[in-house]
Formats: sequence, structure tokens, C-alpha cells
Amino acid sequence: MGVTATYLFPTHPDQEKIAEQHALGLTIGSWTDIPHIEQQQLKHHKGEVVSVVKGEQKDTVTIFYPSANFSADLPAIFTTVYGKLSFFEGYELIDLQFDNSLLAQFPGPRFGVNGIREKLGVYDRPLLKAIFKGVMGRDLSFFSTQLQDLLAGGIDLIKDDEILFENELTPFHKRVTIAKDIIDHHYEKTGAHALYAVNLSGRSHELHEKAERATELGASALLFNVHAYGLDTLQSLRENDNIGLPILAHSALSGVLAGQAGSGFSYPLLVGKLTRLVGGDLSLFPSPYGNVAISRKDALGINEELIQDNGLERTFAVPSAGIHPGMVPQLLEDFGDNLVINAGGGIFGHPDGPTPGAQAFRAAIDASVEHIPLQQAAKTSSPLRHALDHWGTIDVT
Amino acid sequence: MGVTATYLFPTHPDQEKIAEQHALGLTIGSWTDIPHIEQQQLKHHKGEVVSVVKGEQKDTVTIFYPSANFSADLPAIFTTVYGKLSFFEGYELIDLQFDNSLLAQFPGPRFGVNGIREKLGVYDRPLLKAIFKGVMGRDLSFFSTQLQDLLAGGIDLIKDDEILFENELTPFHKRVTIAKDIIDHHYEKTGAHALYAVNLSGRSHELHEKAERATELGASALLFNVHAYGLDTLQSLRENDNIGLPILAHSALSGVLAGQAGSGFSYPLLVGKLTRLVGGDLSLFPSPYGNVAISRKDALGINEELIQDNGLERTFAVPSAGIHPGMVPQLLEDFGDNLVINAGGGIFGHPDGPTPGAQAFRAAIDASVEHIPLQQAAKTSSPLRHALDHWGTIDVT
Repeated sequence: MGVTATYLFPTHPDQEKIAEQHALGLTIGSWTDIPHIEQQQLKHHKGEVVSVVKGEQKDTVTIFYPSANFSADLPAIFTTVYGKLSFFEGYELIDLQFDNSLLAQFPGPRFGVNGIREKLGVYDRPLLKAIFKGVMGRDLSFFSTQLQDLLAGGIDLIKDDEILFENELTPFHKRVTIAKDIIDHHYEKTGAHALYAVNLSGRSHELHEKAERATELGASALLFNVHAYGLDTLQSLRENDNIGLPILAHSALSGVLAGQAGSGFSYPLLVGKLTRLVGGDLSLFPSPYGNVAISRKDALGINEELIQDNGLERTFAVPSAGIHPGMVPQLLEDFGDNLVINAGGGIFGHPDGPTPGAQAFRAAIDASVEHIPLQQAAKTSSPLRHALDHWGTIDVT
Repeated sequence: MGVTATYLFPTHPDQEKIAEQHALGLTIGSWTDIPHIEQQQLKHHKGEVVSVVKGEQKDTVTIFYPSANFSADLPAIFTTVYGKLSFFEGYELIDLQFDNSLLAQFPGPRFGVNGIREKLGVYDRPLLKAIFKGVMGRDLSFFSTQLQDLLAGGIDLIKDDEILFENELTPFHKRVTIAKDIIDHHYEKTGAHALYAVNLSGRSHELHEKAERATELGASALLFNVHAYGLDTLQSLRENDNIGLPILAHSALSGVLAGQAGSGFSYPLLVGKLTRLVGGDLSLFPSPYGNVAISRKDALGINEELIQDNGLERTFAVPSAGIHPGMVPQLLEDFGDNLVINAGGGIFGHPDGPTPGAQAFRAAIDASVEHIPLQQAAKTSSPLRHALDHWGTIDVT
């Protein structure tokens, strides 16, 4: 039992030998020069090269590390499988396979796709999420107005900008309580639920208390810059039953860890598989469409890891940046129906303002799940028509 | 007041404009299209481009971010200055300058160079540190024997292998108490102090309790894989007065964050400046000499950040890997007298065993601080002579 790591190493004629040295060096150190009796004692700790597949520029190397060597936490696993190898140029860590007993140590999402849909009472279409815009330096009335405008347009979720931290104008706890009141009022008026992901930030050792307090105050979800704190910290938040809120894992900073061609983690592993394992209910990452972008292959790879069968709840993909209503059919083509369509500029930049901005998305979503062309749907939705006039449509590839 | 980030961006004819877009996008969002009265309100939040210096392949871009925008913690600062920019190809973060009020939020080392020297009673030479070898899969008597052999050879510090985690054969608390007894006994016999850095590992939320317990049991130092947990977690451990132990920050995994040419953090920033700011008493990083290596420029850059005047205690550099006694003069040439000479294979690989292995280093250190050539010192030290016969010397560059 243990974890199997798949790497890409720069191609080398003696790759088998190199891989074997690493498998030993990262576990028991040496093998052939120790007595037989000690080999018996050490064999349960010995790393094993599972396979070496030669490629043109990179060879795919798979190494098994026994569970006996590490505790069942990601800091120990990362340090084992990549702590030293990260110093070697061009050594990429593209996947980790956990055996079932190890996998059982990870909680997965508390809510996930099904739980979030239940909270919202929305089962038959992609969800619509908005990002607060320009709150920094502005006050709670600005914040409240924006939330009301977006709810009026039919959004399901809204999140803080990930760079909005504790501040005097819009304090964390005030944002929570004011948003709760507005969302509750909206529900009483319309019957529509909504979730607001408040940015859980500050010092690492204060996060639990702060999140527990937010829960008490009626917070509906948390935004968390997981890569500023580490995946294990997200896992702890997920496991804390005194919090019990959906967690939107934001991929800020993951470009350092996964975004560099030919090195680091792969995005599907980091922002997909591992974010889901530790308990992210939603995983936000750069879409392949905007100016802050990752490759289409990586984005689709993340989504696949978030939803494939592994016994855990599924995590909602939230591909972000550069999203406007004309892009909705492409998003559904790429990510399926179970995704969150997330927009900032694509809502606030609408020529008629944020409420029609959100309505345009809702019209585009409703049309797209019915396979109705947007231009046709725009005939009965002036917000959508104005959005398409402004941003255009894109041909689905 | 705030933080000034220095980046290398791929060269671009419109770099000033790009930099300005980022300075706005990462703070208040927009500027020219908002009314004058709101500009007054927002100007204390506006990011500013400090300078753009054109280069051949990379331009050096410096951006100032006001303190009003973030809380005084590294997760917030990292997310602000690099959360989004990390997704842009070839955007490197090479330095962060903190204003004095922000700098005062960071503790720096509790002990540092002076405090560690006081603990050891050694003021006039580089310190000698050893790494336990092959403990994985072996028991406490193996561990004890190794520690006794190393102490007999005159080591000042010893650390766990960073991949030794909680395990049944050599449990964390047992390692602490047994090492304490052996080190105490050694002191009674010889008057020589020594520190053992036990690997503090496990789930993030358990670290403080585990470290506090280690302190109660008489631990003398902690080893911490800081990049598996985040710098902010190291800072919390440093600030916890119920721990109060020297912390050896290990750079495992930092190759992901800093080791990729043309992207990510710089090593001097991450493993030098920031590791010191949050409270690492010792910073262990790959030496430029071995098979797991970083560049000489990076290694010296780290050391410079660990010791330069900034009002905080200095952090000991622990350049590691590929160190043997013949290399000591080069280490002193590169890092000065205030460093820790750290060896694993360079001690255990000595032809006569680990005690002479450590003695060889001590002889090399004593000679080098007196500027006595090693070959000359070897005439009166057979452990050093055998080490030089085995590994050779290197010409100091």
C-alpha cells in the first residue's frame, strides 16, 4: 500500500538506472550494499520503479512509495515524492495515485456538485456565479448595492474578489451578516436561494476560529486562496464540523506550482484531483478563453479530475476569466452541464449594467441547455441581445 | 506604506502600459474611467508602477501595493502581488521590499546566529551538522548508536532526514526523549553541547500541539519542511512562546516555487529573505556543489539575505548536499565563517566510519578558520588525511 507518483523526466539513455536511484534515495537510501538480513527488514520501506516509458523529450517515470514511510497527509507525501526531485531541472510531477486505504484518509467535498445544487434548489442547468467588482476602497453600501443588483439578475453564487482582505471599510464579519440579510430577503421575495463566498483570509492559525465565527453569523460559503496556505489547511477547514460551509478553492498562486511548462505539478493533479481530495466544493481556475488563461488541455484535465468516479463527491469546475454570455455554448461544450459559469467583467461590463448583465447570462444558459442558438434566444431577451451586440458570439469548436 | 514587488517580465515594447494595467488590476481595478470624487476615495488603495527598466530578454518592473489593501500576513501579500501574475508565462517575482511598519509585523528568528551560538557555546568557527542516515525502517537503537557516533566525532547539530515522518519504529516523541538523554550525557562527559532537530510533521492543525509537547519532553530544535506547509505556518510556530525552540527551515519542495529558470519566486527571496522574516533560525538549501544543486549565484544570494542588516536576528545558512571535508575552505570562501557545514554522505561515507567522518570535518574547519591548508592539517589528523585521500580537495575559486 502506498502512493504511486508519475513524473516526466528529461529523456535520458539510462533513465531506468536514474529512476532506481531516486526510488531508493527517497526511501531507504541504498539496497545492494546492505546485508540480506537487513534487506528483509527494509523491504517494506523500499521504493519501487513501476515503469519507465521513453518519450522524445521526456520519459514517463512511475515510482511507488510505500505507506510505511510517511504519515497520511499531503505535506509528508509531497515532501517524499517531490521534496528533493523538485530541485532537478525539468522534473514534472503529473499524477499521484493513492491506494484505497490512503484515499480513505481524504475527506473529499462536504457538499460537492450534489450538495451545492441542493442548497440552491437548482438541478437542471449550469450555475451562474458573479464576482464582486471594485469593492476595495469602497464601503458596505457599495457592497450591498452590488449584491442586490446581481441577485435581481438571477445569480446563484457570488464571491469576493480574492484580493479583498480584512479591511476597515468592508470588514469580514460585516460582509457576512449584511450579505446574509440581503440573500435572506431575496429568498423571501423570490424563492430563489443564493450563496456568498466570503474570502477567508488572515494568519493560518486564525482561520478556523474566523470561519467558525462566520458560520455562526450565517455565512453561506467560504472563498479560500488554498495555494497561499497549502492544501492540507483546506483539508482541515473541510473537516471542521463547526464550520460546515461549502468551500470555493481559488487557484491564485497555482501558476507558481503548476503553470510553468516542463516543471512543477500538473494543473489536473493540483487544481483538479488534490483540490477535490482535500475537500474543495468548487475549484476556480483560469479558463482557456481569457487574457489570464491556462491551456485548454489543462482546463479540461482539471475538470475531468473534479468529476470522475472515485467514491468522493464531485467538485464543481469554475473556469474563470474572459467569460461573456456569447461564450456559454462553448463552456457547456467543454465542461458539460455540471459547471459554474463565473463572470466579473462579463456581467459588470454589460452596456445596461449588472442586473441585465446577469440576466443575459441566465438567458444564455437557459437557451444553451435546450440547444437553442443564442441569436434566437436573444429575440426574446433584450439583455442577451445587448450582450451579444457588445461581445459577440463565438463559434463552438 | 506598503510592499514593493520587483518582477522580471518578458520584454515588451509597451511594458510601461502593461505594468500600469497590472498595478491597477491588482488593486482598485480601474482609474481613468471613474469620477474624480471616487478617485479621491480610492487613491490610497491604488497600486503604483515605481519603475520599468528595459532589458534584453526581461524587463525589471517594480510595483508598489499600499498596505491598505491587505492584512499583514504573507498569504494576503502573496495573493496580492503574485496570485494572478503567477499565471503569466515568464513572470518572475524576484524581490519584496516591506516598509518598516510592515516589516515590524514579522518576528524574524527567535535565536538566529547569535542565539544558536550561545546555546552551543561555540563562537569562533563554523558549526558542524550531520544528517541521520538510513533511519527509515530501522529502530531506536540504530538511531541512538548513530547519534552517539556523531557526537563522539564532535558534531554540533544533527537533524532527521526530512523524509522521516511519524512511524512505529522511531516515533517522534521517542526520538526526542532518547536524543535528549544522549545529548545530556554527552554534555556531562565532555562539556560539549549539541542540538537535535526533530522533524516536525503531520497535519497542519496538529503542529503546534506536537511541537509544544516536544518542548516539554526536552527537544532542542525542530526541523520543518516549511514549503510543504507555507511560510506563514513557520511564522506561527516561531511566535508560539510555548514552543520556543530553534527552527531549521528545510527547503524541500522549494524547487517547485523557485527552481524553475525564468518563473516563480527567486531563491534569495523565498529561501533567504522570507524564511528569515518569518523566523527560521537556520535555512537549509542545496549547495552549489553537489548533485542536488542550485546555482552559485542563487546560493550566495540566499546567504546574503540571511545575514544582511535589517534589524532582525541573522539566520544561519546551511548549504547542503555534496559536502565533504575537502570542500570546507571553499564553503568558508563562499559563505563566510558564520555558516553551518552540513553533511550526510560526507560523514557516513568516511572510510573509517561516522566518528572519524565527523572528526575529519572538525579538523578541516579548525584548519580553515586559521587559513591552514588542509593537506598540512591532515599531517596531524588521520581522520582528515583519510577523508582527503578518499574525496580529495578542491581548489578554492
